[in-house]
Amino acid sequence: MKNVTAEILTIGDEILFGQILDTNAQWMSAELDLLGIRVVRKTTVGDNEPDILHAFTEAESRADLVLITGGLGPTNDDLTMPSLAKYFGCKIVENASVLAHVKDFFEKRGRDFTEMNKRQALVPEIAEVIHNSLGTAPCTWYERNGKIFVSMPGVPHEMKNVMKEFIIPKVRTFFQTPVIYHKVIRTVGIGESFLADKIKDWENALPHHIRLAYLPSVGHVKLRLTAIGDDRSQLEKDVQQLIDAFIPLGGKYIYGYDETSLEEAVGQLLLAQKKTIALAESCSGGFIQHKITQIPGSSAYFQGGIVPYHNQFKIDVLGVKASTLEKHGAVSEECVKEMAERVREKFNSDIGVASSGIAGPGGGSEEKPVGTVWIAFADGKQTITKRLQLTQNRILNIELTEIAVLNLVRKSLNQ
Amino acid sequence: MKNVTAEILTIGDEILFGQILDTNAQWMSAELDLLGIRVVRKTTVGDNEPDILHAFTEAESRADLVLITGGLGPTNDDLTMPSLAKYFGCKIVENASVLAHVKDFFEKRGRDFTEMNKRQALVPEIAEVIHNSLGTAPCTWYERNGKIFVSMPGVPHEMKNVMKEFIIPKVRTFFQTPVIYHKVIRTVGIGESFLADKIKDWENALPHHIRLAYLPSVGHVKLRLTAIGDDRSQLEKDVQQLIDAFIPLGGKYIYGYDETSLEEAVGQLLLAQKKTIALAESCSGGFIQHKITQIPGSSAYFQGGIVPYHNQFKIDVLGVKASTLEKHGAVSEECVKEMAERVREKFNSDIGVASSGIAGPGGGSEEKPVGTVWIAFADGKQTITKRLQLTQNRILNIELTEIAVLNLVRKSLNQ
Repeated sequence: MKNVTAEILTIGDEILFGQILDTNAQWMSAELDLLGIRVVRKTTVGDNEPDILHAFTEAESRADLVLITGGLGPTNDDLTMPSLAKYFGCKIVENASVLAHVKDFFEKRGRDFTEMNKRQALVPEIAEVIHNSLGTAPCTWYERNGKIFVSMPGVPHEMKNVMKEFIIPKVRTFFQTPVIYHKVIRTVGIGESFLADKIKDWENALPHHIRLAYLPSVGHVKLRLTAIGDDRSQLEKDVQQLIDAFIPLGGKYIYGYDETSLEEAVGQLLLAQKKTIALAESCSGGFIQHKITQIPGSSAYFQGGIVPYHNQFKIDVLGVKASTLEKHGAVSEECVKEMAERVREKFNSDIGVASSGIAGPGGGSEEKPVGTVWIAFADGKQTITKRLQLTQNRILNIELTEIAVLNLVRKSLNQ
Repeated sequence: MKNVTAEILTIGDEILFGQILDTNAQWMSAELDLLGIRVVRKTTVGDNEPDILHAFTEAESRADLVLITGGLGPTNDDLTMPSLAKYFGCKIVENASVLAHVKDFFEKRGRDFTEMNKRQALVPEIAEVIHNSLGTAPCTWYERNGKIFVSMPGVPHEMKNVMKEFIIPKVRTFFQTPVIYHKVIRTVGIGESFLADKIKDWENALPHHIRLAYLPSVGHVKLRLTAIGDDRSQLEKDVQQLIDAFIPLGGKYIYGYDETSLEEAVGQLLLAQKKTIALAESCSGGFIQHKITQIPGSSAYFQGGIVPYHNQFKIDVLGVKASTLEKHGAVSEECVKEMAERVREKFNSDIGVASSGIAGPGGGSEEKPVGTVWIAFADGKQTITKRLQLTQNRILNIELTEIAVLNLVRKSLNQ
């Protein structure tokens, strides 16, 4: 297979002038990277025909595949379709199947179908039309001299759907890209360089057809294994073998694979062990409960929680002893231990967890500077506590506390 | 003044391959738009010299101002500086002032200064060096034939700082852009088209030198007034006059101006009225408390809260009557009213608020479909309740509940 190159072209004044953030281009790049197709350029132009045509010419000169989003609305400032017709030297025609789909789309939603909407069915005569089931703007495909242009709607969920369902398989067939199999190992609680050090022999021994990428983000490191070959089931086996060899080295940091988030992984553990959880959050201010309850079905294991932001309510509402707060203060091992134990009792849950710390920017002292956080896990048999020393940044401290708490729950449940 | 055009050029494989999202380009576009400079193209190229040089040539052919980010690290794959030197036909030299800054930067942080770090001081001979106080990669400025190239670090907070402190004022002077004054009016609780209808006479009567932009986002509509002239204090007066005329039309929807968020605006109201707040969140799962506690200093008015996710804890922990839940269910006016009143008592606060609903995707019924949410505000004198009918999307329902609750508090405090 030759090396296939791609250009991503975004059309729209709203992107050019900074009114909206272009997240499509990143998503498409990452998808192409997974296919082994090299993106060589990303371009954004506004809603004007000369710039669009110029961008088409440039893109065709340097890439085999040109993925275009945006400029497909029914109004006069949407110029992608007429520009494509001009570029490929053909007429614009009304496509009966698109028209039927648009009519049906409006009917099903009880909305009026107007003359304006009818314009969505106008496409360049030579285009192959690809179905956009989630919206009214059609997706179109063009071939010339072994190169491909694809025009897609700019609405992210419509673009993603049409890419996954139609464009990616079609591109793979057209360019005869090899079989590529990816597996992401998600880790938490260890920094990138420490993890790299632990697994260096394993990494150095990776076979030639499998490569490794480190993808770090706040509090997490993801490892992506990419296997290239022509037999998918063999590639899956090869990757699984590598993961089996990885587990003795770094397995205790793995919380999941592929798209599983940490809060989902913890939820799955709780479900599997039929355990329930309750939270007492001080410095994290409800953020951990928010993350847990974002997951559909979390009511099966999440009982509830308390945010006793002021010390008085750690006593009155949660039941921490006044003497504990007097003697040790709220940001202390003793306090967070009682918080976890009391919230467990209050909500009649198997597990109680707690956070208490100084998120900043104010409130620090020499003994307990900004970023000092205590967390605890209680399950009735034992209470585990941990002191964290985080950053000067309030928002980051809240996020890092959330990750540390969920990781403490994960590790304790795995024991 | 002639119309000044700009191109934004991002350099880096990590952006091209979709490993990170380019938020810089949007931010810079929006800043240029505020200056009245028209962005005509955004381009991303990878870490390779031919592509970078080609992009420079193209950018110079179509724009007066080229803003470049990325590719400034000290490693061999960072090619922006050598490419700029080649493009402008000059040598790379060690800049003494940059070297001193980089050494000082490492010393202050107690980190070792290596030969590798020394390379950060190598800049094209003809460049004007601009100070980057937040990092080690220097910012450089180039002038040729009335056009400007600026190279900046890709780290967002470094780029933003150098843009605000140095580049924007320098660009304004160079191109003699007019004085532009902006004011953003932030509204909540009214849709874009309804707001546009309410203010259409006001909008139609805007003077020629002031234009209006609608900037809608989830639950909010921002209105940006942009005044262009040559006397800043006169522009400020003109805009203030328009705002004074806006207030009788849409004033009750305004929660703040410019960068003020809704949770900040509510916090400021509570502070000004010396009132405290507590929350009982069911369907919003802690998200409202999280938003409130993200604001530094929120402990002055936020007492705490309870997330009684299961009905039993609405009774046991919060003190809602069992008969209320039996008779009306948890997603009911009666339940949410009691929740707000009980949490107010529990946390001894001036104000108690509550949410209870069906976030989805499961749990809906014919009578109470997914997206049904009740919210309440209690201040000891009265309890106000409201029923919301939201969407099928769990994440969106949580966010819309948060906005509705904070808006209910805002409106009640403003009465």
